Amino acid sequence: MKKRFKSAAILAGAAALTLCACSEKQAESNNEATGNAAIENIMTRASVRQFTDRAIAPDTLETILKAGMAAPTAMNKQPWDFVVVTERAMLDSLMAAHPYSNLKTATAAIIVCGNMQKAIEGEGQANWILDCSAATENILLAAHALGLGAVWCGVYPTADRIAPVKTTLKLPSYIIPLNIISMGYPAGENQPKDKWNPDNVHYQQW
Amino acid sequence: MKKRFKSAAILAGAAALTLCACSEKQAESNNEATGNAAIENIMTRASVRQFTDRAIAPDTLETILKAGMAAPTAMNKQPWDFVVVTERAMLDSLMAAHPYSNLKTATAAIIVCGNMQKAIEGEGQANWILDCSAATENILLAAHALGLGAVWCGVYPTADRIAPVKTTLKLPSYIIPLNIISMGYPAGENQPKDKWNPDNVHYQQW
Repeated sequence: MKKRFKSAAILAGAAALTLCACSEKQAESNNEATGNAAIENIMTRASVRQFTDRAIAPDTLETILKAGMAAPTAMNKQPWDFVVVTERAMLDSLMAAHPYSNLKTATAAIIVCGNMQKAIEGEGQANWILDCSAATENILLAAHALGLGAVWCGVYPTADRIAPVKTTLKLPSYIIPLNIISMGYPAGENQPKDKWNPDNVHYQQW
Repeated sequence: MKKRFKSAAILAGAAALTLCACSEKQAESNNEATGNAAIENIMTRASVRQFTDRAIAPDTLETILKAGMAAPTAMNKQPWDFVVVTERAMLDSLMAAHPYSNLKTATAAIIVCGNMQKAIEGEGQANWILDCSAATENILLAAHALGLGAVWCGVYPTADRIAPVKTTLKLPSYIIPLNIISMGYPAGENQPKDKWNPDNVHYQQW
């Protein structure tokens, strides 16, 4: 994927050269446009549950996994593992294990897992939940950036979901599935929810 | 901020019109460039702990908070509140409450909090941790997109940190601080860690 980033950078560079003669002001606008593209990607992401039958290329999945592993983790423990499911039979088995997993038309699933052998010991162990949630958000955002749709289907902390998902994926005892991220190319339009609420913001103190 | 998104879109649109006559292929490259900008923003984010004295404009903070609230939440509960601290005296008090909060040169802090009055009841309550972690990752990414630096300083699940932070911010009993995100304009360069490890990926099953 480094190659892909490079070619995008070259393309953007070439565009800038062609476009303008080229003032600093324009260069600043380009930086702002790049930043705004990242913000817009966050603001336009929506949960997608219906997909076309177009398969996801392996290098696209790898880019998404790299984005997941770019999340910060407490004490840099990276206490995670990722199971990628693309075979229809396995997606069906997962759907049987987790009826709210929206896998009927999905062409792939990523199961983000906490690994207790890599997690902080003692009181800090629960940090795996925070770390794997940050990785999940990166995965959702990367999928959206690449034209895919995805939805976070919760597994942890629901005991009734954890056990069957563990069995289906043959997860060792020290691995806890946080979620199933169902993915594919979106069928139809998906509008993001507007969740902005200024009442949620408190200045200086409560 | 809607205005800002619109002007960025207009700018991008104008650029596309000026740049090319304009083939579909070029339009696709533009989409790819926008998507790649979002991916690159994820891959280049780093923890930043040293800041210049340049203040953060209120509308920049609002954009970052909107990005936080754009995160998905279990059952759409949005079980969160955000405390924004920009006054030096309060930043110092927080630093006294949490010695690892990297607030010495920070010009702002966002404390992402779980609200137990909005959270799912029963077994699902712990979903506030996942939801607030996703919001935190959005905040870190939005800050980076806007040229700021930030770092996630953990509070929950460490009891010794939760109590003094609650006292300092006068948080009600039903509010749990997940973290302190210390922010500002970065002093110096900050390299992202390369955490990609293909051994973390398992295909179809463990």
